[in-house]
Amino acid sequence: MSLATSVLAGERLAMARLLSQIENDEPGGREALGELFPHTGKAHLVGVTGAPGTGKSSLVNRLAHYYRNPSSGEPQRKIAIVAVDPSSPFTGGAILGDRVRMRDLSGDPGVFIRSMAARGSLGGLAPTTSSMVQVFDAAGFEIILIETVGAGQAEVDIARLAHTTLVVEAPGLGDEIQAIKAGILEIADILVVNKADRPGVENTERALRSMLELAHPTRRVVEHHGAVETININDSGMDSESLWIPPILRTVAIQGDGIPELVQAIADHQAHLETTGERHDRDRARLQAELEQLIQGNLVSRWRQEVSDSQYQEILESLIARQISPHQAVEALLNGGQSA
Amino acid sequence: MSLATSVLAGERLAMARLLSQIENDEPGGREALGELFPHTGKAHLVGVTGAPGTGKSSLVNRLAHYYRNPSSGEPQRKIAIVAVDPSSPFTGGAILGDRVRMRDLSGDPGVFIRSMAARGSLGGLAPTTSSMVQVFDAAGFEIILIETVGAGQAEVDIARLAHTTLVVEAPGLGDEIQAIKAGILEIADILVVNKADRPGVENTERALRSMLELAHPTRRVVEHHGAVETININDSGMDSESLWIPPILRTVAIQGDGIPELVQAIADHQAHLETTGERHDRDRARLQAELEQLIQGNLVSRWRQEVSDSQYQEILESLIARQISPHQAVEALLNGGQSA
Repeated sequence: MSLATSVLAGERLAMARLLSQIENDEPGGREALGELFPHTGKAHLVGVTGAPGTGKSSLVNRLAHYYRNPSSGEPQRKIAIVAVDPSSPFTGGAILGDRVRMRDLSGDPGVFIRSMAARGSLGGLAPTTSSMVQVFDAAGFEIILIETVGAGQAEVDIARLAHTTLVVEAPGLGDEIQAIKAGILEIADILVVNKADRPGVENTERALRSMLELAHPTRRVVEHHGAVETININDSGMDSESLWIPPILRTVAIQGDGIPELVQAIADHQAHLETTGERHDRDRARLQAELEQLIQGNLVSRWRQEVSDSQYQEILESLIARQISPHQAVEALLNGGQSA
Repeated sequence: MSLATSVLAGERLAMARLLSQIENDEPGGREALGELFPHTGKAHLVGVTGAPGTGKSSLVNRLAHYYRNPSSGEPQRKIAIVAVDPSSPFTGGAILGDRVRMRDLSGDPGVFIRSMAARGSLGGLAPTTSSMVQVFDAAGFEIILIETVGAGQAEVDIARLAHTTLVVEAPGLGDEIQAIKAGILEIADILVVNKADRPGVENTERALRSMLELAHPTRRVVEHHGAVETININDSGMDSESLWIPPILRTVAIQGDGIPELVQAIADHQAHLETTGERHDRDRARLQAELEQLIQGNLVSRWRQEVSDSQYQEILESLIARQISPHQAVEALLNGGQSA
């Protein structure tokens, strides 16, 4: 039985092995992914991002709990969690600490948790995460929570993998931190003010609301409804023009407050994506981005095989001696590569 | 007179124009850079990075002040500042607010300040910064301060441009934030605890010291000196084996406290780089990285010209329909590109 077949049958050991092969970029992993790919496209991918200190991990844990133990009448879901820490091997501790809190989840066959600490180059973090998500998707996990630490470009790239992106904020993290978080507001489908029992929650909400007004074409909504006062940016976000305005939800994750409402907002957004056809557009954009990143990597490795080491070193030395400029070096290397 | 010649003559207007051409990736900018490149390699590049809220901008301003108005006996230096904000167009405000404080610097012909707000894709941020630094270097600016906001991969890439990288911390930013900052510790040549008049400064220093012990091969130093107690990680950092241990310095930038000591530590590190030959190694690594990034961009744009739109769309549609896997799509596109 091939590794891919075992994964399709839901064998956890096979999944763990394949995820490791993917992380180490082994050829076997690539082959299995090719077999699994036709079985993907069913899961709902939920990105969870935000600045450090906002309590993302607790929120992800509570969401997973709720999906496993929903209110009566709601279906139980199979949940995978991919926790990506792109900052450093040193920060592994932070994520591992949070994972300890998840012990009660880990005995549940309907939950699979995988932490990724990036070592060395981060260029491949988003494609690797994407491949891992494909494994969970093919194995029948219905909701895949992708948690990233921080607010840099790697996190934004990873968040773009998701169908629904939660941006998590918390009161009292300071003004400059608020400013930097604005960058990821642009990718937010749902804004969560976690630790909402802390002082300053109204200020945080107000700041988010004014940033939303900058980031989204709310003016159209205003005109449609006739007056600024009628915008309720806190509701589930659909207006008659099928424009999604990110709702702002309060949670206190460690107490479970606001979790059912957040699960409902995720379901609303999922329905919005289906109704408007945006889900297909997002899948398309995601696969296209993945394709282009793979092509880029392939082009570079093919070119490296074409150029001889001595030729490369010679041109590099001329560059370092400032005899030729970087652009002249590129010309020399690419033309050299073609004639070789 | 060509733009490059005007820049070499130190004309500010020409510099500003060339910097804009570089930011917009205009062919004229590339040409001028080629002319300027042989005149580069003299400036000392100082990267300043760290989490939001640490007071990096104030520190950069104070450093610039000091280099312009040094203690008696020290030479006055020409200073350029490149402030890079990779997070978002929305955060432009934060950097502009800091720039207001620099008004007193801006009338000084020995100072040139340039802010870069990244819009859209961030892939090209480090190469663009590198090109800008080359302009300042060729124009005779002796110290180039490269300030980045945040702690993501873009900031790390930019910090790698520098000869000397300052990582700025501040007391009381919370534990999880401390953890994420550990990622940039690996690139720190000098650690600055700014806002050192705040409570908790000892805790911050202690946390940094224990992270340094993880990040650096201090064990060798321990053995060399015979006992753990003899390590003074606060000194200027050179031991008899020419190993640089990042010193930890306290500053209160808004009051100017600790700035002369910081300038001295930068000079010490500069001397260390020269003595050990590491300056040459860093320049080499930087130019090689720049070359490889340029090659990658060129390979992709050449390939795009080779593949027809219809061919690309057809393969993309098969991928989206999950008839072929991403890796199969890459194979089809690259072979298609070669035979075209």
